[in-house]
Amino acid sequence: MEIKAKMKIRCSAHAAYEAFCDPEKITNFWFTKSSARWESGKTISLEDEDYAAAFDIEVILAEPDQIILFNWADGDDRRQCTLRFDEKDGCAIVEAVEAGWQEEKDNVAAMLRNQTGWVSMLTCLKAYLENGINTLRAGLVMD
Amino acid sequence: MEIKAKMKIRCSAHAAYEAFCDPEKITNFWFTKSSARWESGKTISLEDEDYAAAFDIEVILAEPDQIILFNWADGDDRRQCTLRFDEKDGCAIVEAVEAGWQEEKDNVAAMLRNQTGWVSMLTCLKAYLENGINTLRAGLVMD
Repeated sequence: MEIKAKMKIRCSAHAAYEAFCDPEKITNFWFTKSSARWESGKTISLEDEDYAAAFDIEVILAEPDQIILFNWADGDDRRQCTLRFDEKDGCAIVEAVEAGWQEEKDNVAAMLRNQTGWVSMLTCLKAYLENGINTLRAGLVMD
Repeated sequence: MEIKAKMKIRCSAHAAYEAFCDPEKITNFWFTKSSARWESGKTISLEDEDYAAAFDIEVILAEPDQIILFNWADGDDRRQCTLRFDEKDGCAIVEAVEAGWQEEKDNVAAMLRNQTGWVSMLTCLKAYLENGINTLRAGLVMD
């Protein structure tokens, strides 16, 4: 089963793609540290200091302004994440998909938690790219 | 099972509570129409013109700056929603809880969809109350 979220943003697909790949830009809406520019074949260390989280991702494919495919490990589980960038009516459409979930009942709380993360990230991305606001990203209280 | 989301917002609990209850304010981050001020015992008609949604809620309890408890029907299912308002370190903490979910596998997609709605709403509320931005709320693409 997949977790999916999709956001319409008044910007180009290029601007949305760059927001993830550029280590300075990503700090405005998602992680507080990204170790290098996201490119195919690279391992990137990510940190979120506000939520005391740190892990590596493996960028499988990064096709400028189109798609980023990366793997990350969530405990024993390996997730494959896809970010797709499209343009429609002068807006970027950014879709995030996290595959690799089993549908068992015990996973529901974890799926809801990760869905929360993706929706929050995409909404913060929209506020950053449309309004230059970078103060939304640490608002979620995860207890 | 419950769906839950919680947001820290740099404003008073009073300002956050009023954002829901005042029919003009709610249009900035959630519904495009709210038929009356939210008060205990009232039935309120809500519309979201951007997502072609319309339904009534029954406000069971509205305690200024503290809690709003309301019922709404989602098809055959009846949900009980609670919005709690607290203050901590000079910020409002707004918690949304939607109870009445069964944990069966078939419900997972619906739970993820509603979790998406709550997280998006609270993030848009934060942007509205902290930055006066009301252009985030219709960004989600739900297909």
